[in-house]
Amino acid sequence: MRISRSSHRSRAVALALSCLLGAGALACGPQGSQELQPAGGQNGASTSALMKQRSLTENDVTAALKTYTPTGVHDPYYIFASGGHSGQVIVIGLPSMRILKVIGVFTPEPWQGYGYGDQSESVIGQGDTKGIALRWADVHHPALSETKGDYDGQFLFVNDKANARVAVIDLEDFTTTQIVRSGLIQSNHGATFVTPNTEYVIETSQYPAPLGGGYAPIEQFNDAYRGATILWKFDREKRRIVKEESFAIELPPYGQDLADAGKLASEGYFFVNSFNTERSWGGSLEGNPPLESGASQNDMDFLHVFDIRKAEKAVADGKTKLIAGMRVISLETAASEGILHLVPEPKSPHGVDVTPDGKEIVIAGKLDTHATIYTIEKLKAAIEAKKYAGVDAYGVPILPFEDVIRGQVELGLGPLHTQYDDKGNAYTSLFLESVIAKWNLADLKLISKIPVHYNVGHITTPEGDTVSPDGGYLVAMNKWAIDRFQDVGPLLPQNFQLIDTASEPMQLLYDLPIPNGEPHYAQTIKADKIKAIDVYSPVGTDPLLRAVSPNAVGAGKERIERRGDGVHVYMTAVRSHFVPDVIRVKQGETVHIHLTNTEQALDATHGFAIADYNVNVSIEPGEHSDIEFVASLPGVFPIYCTEFCSALHLEMAAYLLVEPTN
Amino acid sequence: MRISRSSHRSRAVALALSCLLGAGALACGPQGSQELQPAGGQNGASTSALMKQRSLTENDVTAALKTYTPTGVHDPYYIFASGGHSGQVIVIGLPSMRILKVIGVFTPEPWQGYGYGDQSESVIGQGDTKGIALRWADVHHPALSETKGDYDGQFLFVNDKANARVAVIDLEDFTTTQIVRSGLIQSNHGATFVTPNTEYVIETSQYPAPLGGGYAPIEQFNDAYRGATILWKFDREKRRIVKEESFAIELPPYGQDLADAGKLASEGYFFVNSFNTERSWGGSLEGNPPLESGASQNDMDFLHVFDIRKAEKAVADGKTKLIAGMRVISLETAASEGILHLVPEPKSPHGVDVTPDGKEIVIAGKLDTHATIYTIEKLKAAIEAKKYAGVDAYGVPILPFEDVIRGQVELGLGPLHTQYDDKGNAYTSLFLESVIAKWNLADLKLISKIPVHYNVGHITTPEGDTVSPDGGYLVAMNKWAIDRFQDVGPLLPQNFQLIDTASEPMQLLYDLPIPNGEPHYAQTIKADKIKAIDVYSPVGTDPLLRAVSPNAVGAGKERIERRGDGVHVYMTAVRSHFVPDVIRVKQGETVHIHLTNTEQALDATHGFAIADYNVNVSIEPGEHSDIEFVASLPGVFPIYCTEFCSALHLEMAAYLLVEPTN
Repeated sequence: MRISRSSHRSRAVALALSCLLGAGALACGPQGSQELQPAGGQNGASTSALMKQRSLTENDVTAALKTYTPTGVHDPYYIFASGGHSGQVIVIGLPSMRILKVIGVFTPEPWQGYGYGDQSESVIGQGDTKGIALRWADVHHPALSETKGDYDGQFLFVNDKANARVAVIDLEDFTTTQIVRSGLIQSNHGATFVTPNTEYVIETSQYPAPLGGGYAPIEQFNDAYRGATILWKFDREKRRIVKEESFAIELPPYGQDLADAGKLASEGYFFVNSFNTERSWGGSLEGNPPLESGASQNDMDFLHVFDIRKAEKAVADGKTKLIAGMRVISLETAASEGILHLVPEPKSPHGVDVTPDGKEIVIAGKLDTHATIYTIEKLKAAIEAKKYAGVDAYGVPILPFEDVIRGQVELGLGPLHTQYDDKGNAYTSLFLESVIAKWNLADLKLISKIPVHYNVGHITTPEGDTVSPDGGYLVAMNKWAIDRFQDVGPLLPQNFQLIDTASEPMQLLYDLPIPNGEPHYAQTIKADKIKAIDVYSPVGTDPLLRAVSPNAVGAGKERIERRGDGVHVYMTAVRSHFVPDVIRVKQGETVHIHLTNTEQALDATHGFAIADYNVNVSIEPGEHSDIEFVASLPGVFPIYCTEFCSALHLEMAAYLLVEPTN
Repeated sequence: MRISRSSHRSRAVALALSCLLGAGALACGPQGSQELQPAGGQNGASTSALMKQRSLTENDVTAALKTYTPTGVHDPYYIFASGGHSGQVIVIGLPSMRILKVIGVFTPEPWQGYGYGDQSESVIGQGDTKGIALRWADVHHPALSETKGDYDGQFLFVNDKANARVAVIDLEDFTTTQIVRSGLIQSNHGATFVTPNTEYVIETSQYPAPLGGGYAPIEQFNDAYRGATILWKFDREKRRIVKEESFAIELPPYGQDLADAGKLASEGYFFVNSFNTERSWGGSLEGNPPLESGASQNDMDFLHVFDIRKAEKAVADGKTKLIAGMRVISLETAASEGILHLVPEPKSPHGVDVTPDGKEIVIAGKLDTHATIYTIEKLKAAIEAKKYAGVDAYGVPILPFEDVIRGQVELGLGPLHTQYDDKGNAYTSLFLESVIAKWNLADLKLISKIPVHYNVGHITTPEGDTVSPDGGYLVAMNKWAIDRFQDVGPLLPQNFQLIDTASEPMQLLYDLPIPNGEPHYAQTIKADKIKAIDVYSPVGTDPLLRAVSPNAVGAGKERIERRGDGVHVYMTAVRSHFVPDVIRVKQGETVHIHLTNTEQALDATHGFAIADYNVNVSIEPGEHSDIEFVASLPGVFPIYCTEFCSALHLEMAAYLLVEPTN
C-alpha cells in the first residue's frame, strides 16, 4: 500500500485539478467508472422471489410496472397541483408520481431565492395590504392557459382564497411573474378559471363582505355585503394581467363557490355555483344557528350563468361604477342587461364542470346523491324566451330548473367534482363514500366505482377539463391519509392516488403522499406542450423583464461604484468564484448588488447568501439578479454560494465588511 | 330517469346529512363502494406486455419490484434529509422513495401554520439578529439523537450554515421546538453532530470572522478572525438545548469543514477537518488570488482532534472567557491543555467519517484520489507521547501524518463522503467521477463502482453512521439532475438515487427528484424507532409546552373577554364550526385568540386563517394555539378553516369585524 502525499500526486489528481479549476466539472464526469461495473444482467432475485420477499400480489406487480419510470425516462404528463395553504404550486410527473418542483408563488421560497432580497420581492409584495406583508396564501385552483379550449402550456394561473389574489406563473421558466389583487373582495374560491383563449382569468369571491374592503356591521349582511366576479384581462404578449382592462360584476351575498368557463358550444359564458343562498352569517354565541346548519336550510341553491359578451358591452357602454379602482357592473345592471341569470341547483353544490364539447354542465352537490346535467342549449333557450321561475331577493331572474336540465345520475354519497376522458365517460369524486364513480355521459349510467383512501376532493384526468381529454389515468386528490403512510406526527400528508381508468375495473396504481400542503385542484397536461427554457440566454437576462438587464455584468467588467444612492457592486458568478469577493461598506449605506451568473451550462446554478441579512438569491445560468439592502448591522458577514456547483463550491465565497460608524 | 329535488330526498342523502353534521365523516366512509368493484384478479396487461409497452428491461422490472410499495404498506426506513437553502427538513420513506413530510424549521411554512401568527413565531424568531428577521437558512447536516451511538428516534438536530444557528426538531410530533444562535460565529458547516448519548450537539464555524460578531478589517484576517466549535449541551428531559451549560473552543482562522463525533473506541473525542489552512481571503479585484486557488496552495490541510473530557475540565476549572454570553476556551488554552491537536490530511479534505467500531476515521479529500484511514489508537498514542511534527501558526501541536494512519485506498476522482454497511464495507461518493465506490474496510480493497447522475455529494445508508449499520441500501444525493427528469425551467431538482447494495454488482433502483431544496446530508433510521404521537392528548395541549395550555378551551366554555391588554377570544374548532364565529373589535385593539381543536380523531386537523392579516394556523387534533395580532386594518375579514375537514368544510367560517375608529 502506497501513502499518497501531494509530493506523490498521481496523474488522476492532476486531471481532477484541471477539471476543478476550469468550469468543466461535467466534462470530467463518469469516465472510467464503467470498468468495474459489469454491463446488463438481472440484478438480484427473480420476480417471484421478490414478490414473496416483499409480499407483492399480481396486482401490485402490474401496478409497479405501470408506474415505474427508469432513470432518465421522462413522464408523458405533468400534473400542476395547487399547494393549498402552503401558498405554492406542486409539479408532478405522471405516471411516475414524482414531485418535480415546488414553485414559489405566494410564500417566500429561499431555495429559489424567491422573496429573499432580489427583484422577486417586487412580485411577492404585489398583494400586500396597508402595513401588512402577506407572505402566505391558500391556493386552490390552478388554470393552465388555453388556446381554443385546449391547454397551450404557456402560463399557469392560481388563486389565493385567503387574501383574494391571483398569480401568474410563466411556464417558460416556471417562475411567478405577477400577483394581482383587486381590493374589491376579501376572499375568493371560484378562481382561477380561464376563457378558451385565455382572454380572461376569472376570480369569484366566496365569503361576502362590503365591496372595496370597507366596514359594515354584520347585521347589514343582506344589504351591505356582496360577492363579485372579476374578469382579469390577460395580455399574452405582455405576459401579464392588465388591471386597467379588467372589470368585475357585483353579486348577491351568497357563498359563491366553484366556477368553470364555457367552451365551444358554450363559449362566451361562464358558470359559478353557490352555497349559503340562505345568507346565514353565524353568530352562534349570540343565539343564531351556526353557519354550517344555517347555510343548509334551503332545498336548492343557485348556479350563476354569466354572459361575457353582454358584460363586455355594458363595460364598453360605461355602465360601470369604480370601486377600489376597478370597473364594476352593478347587480342591477347585471340583471337588467341579461348579464347574469340564476338557475336552481340541488342543495349545497360544489363541482361545476363543463363537458368537453361545451354542450353540458355537470353539477354535483355534496348534500345530494346525484350529478345533475344542465344543457347549454336549454339554458340559452330559456334566457332567450325570458322564461323565468321568478327573481331572487336582488332582482336577478331565475330560470326554471326542470327546463334547463337533461337529467341526473345517482352516484352515491357526497359527489363533488367531475372530469372527463376520451371515451365519453365522466368520473366523479364522492367525498363521503371515498370512491370515484365512473359513468357514461351519453346515457347517464353508472359504470363502476373504485375506493380511494380517504375523503377525496378534486380529481384530475389528463387534459380532462379541456375540449379534448386524453383518458387513461385519474388522480384522486384525497384529503385524509390516516393509515396509508408511516407516522409523521399529528399533521398527516394528503394522499394522491393514481388510478388506471383504461382497465375495467379501474385499478389503483400508486399512493403519493403530498408532504407540503393540501392541494385542492390540479390540471394534467401533455409533457410535450411544455416548452421551458433550460438556461437564461443571452447572459444577463432579468427573468422579470425577459430581456438583458441594464445592470448585467460581463466577465472583466466587475467593479464597485459609489453613488448618491449607495454602493453599487457589479459582480459575476461562475464556477467557482464571485468577482469581486470583498465588499467594503460603512454601516447605514445602501448596498446594491448587480449579480450576473455568466454560465450557460445546464444546471450550473449558483446561490448567493449573505449571513445575518436575510438575503439569499438563486441565480440560474445566464440570470441576472439585483439585490438591495441597507447595511444596518456592522461586522464581518460571509457571502457564499448556496448551490453546490463544483468540487470547489465551498471556496466560492466572499466577505461583506460593514465598518461601524459609531 | 328520476329528477331529485330535496322534496324527494333519498335515504342516502339523509344518511349523508347525519354523517356531515356529526363529527363522524370517517365512519361514513367507503361502505357500499365495494359492490361495484370486482375483487382481485390481475388488472390490465401481462408483465411481458407491460414491459414491451413501457420499454422496461429485466433490470427495470427488478428495480420496480424492489421499490414499489402498495397502498397502505409502510416503509421500513425513514430518511431525514436536510433541505439545503430551503431551510427545512425533508422526510422520505425508503425504499418507496416517497417524500412523507417537509418539516418547517427555519423558513415559515403556512401549511403547518409555522410562523404565521401563533406561538410558533416564538420559535422561528429565536435566531433573529438586531432588527433583521431571519426567515430562511441553509440546512446541511441533520443529526438524529443517539443512545450508545445508535439512533434512538427521539430528536433531530439541524444546522443553518448561513446564519450559524442550530434547530431542535422533536420527533414526537415532527415539529421544530427550538432554534439557538451563539452570536459567536457568523457561519457554520461542521454541524450538527451529536456525541454518542446526545450529551452535546456540535456546531463548528466555516468562514472565519471576529468572534462575537464584531468588525475587523479583513487585512487583520490572521490575527483578528477566528473559527470556533460549540458544544451545545442537550437536556433530554427538558427536550431543549441549554445555552448556559454549553461552551465553545476558539479555533484558528481556517475553513473548518465537516465533523464527526467519536464513538465506542473513540468516545470522548470529535473530529473536524478543514480547508484553506492557507488563510486566503480573496480580494481578487484588489490583486490577490481568488479564494478558490488561494485556498488550494498547500499540500496538506489539518484534521482537528478534540478531547471533550479535557475541554469539560478546562470549563469546570474556569479556564474560559465570555464572548457573546458564551464560555469560550481560548486557542492557547486548547493547545496547552491538550484539548486540540492537528493532524495533516491530504489537500482540501471534505468527508470525515468514524467507522462503526469507533476505531478508525475515513477522510476523503476532493483534490486527492484516496480515502485515508486514521487509527484512533495511533492518534491516542501520538498524543500521549507528545510526538509532534511541529506546531501551527497559533501554537497548536501537529501530530505526524505517517504515525497515525493505517493506510489509504485509491478510489478515483473527487472522493467525498463515506458510509458503512453491516458487512464491513465502506461506500464513498466520488463527486468528479459521479460514481459510488464500494470498498472493503479490512483490507482497503476497492470492490466495485456504480455510476450516479450526477455530481454526487453526500450519501446515506441505513443507520450507516452509527455503531450498527444495517446495509442493503444506499442513497446517492446528487447535486445535478441535468437530463434525468422533464423540464421545469432553468432551476433543476436535485436527484436522490436509491441503490441496492446487497446485490453485486450494485443496482440502481430509483431516481427521486428533490423538488424543493438542495439536501446535503441525510440519515436513514429504522421506522420502528420513530414513536410519533398521532393526536395531541389531552385536548388543549400546547405543542411547545407538551402540556395542556392554561388558555385551553373546552366545548361550552367559549367566550370573548375584554381586558386591559385587548380582546381575548376563547374559541373551539370542531367539524364543522368555530365557536364563536363572529368577533367584533375596534381598530387598533390587540386580539388574542385562544383556539383549541377539541377533536381526538386521527387526521382531523383544522386550519384557521384570517384574510389580510397574514395569519394562518394549523391546529391538529387536540392542539391548542394562541394567536395574537393588532387589528390595525378596519373592515370585514373572513376567517375560515384552511384544512378540508368535512363535506361542510366550506361552511366552517367566521367573521372578524374591525370597526374603524376614525
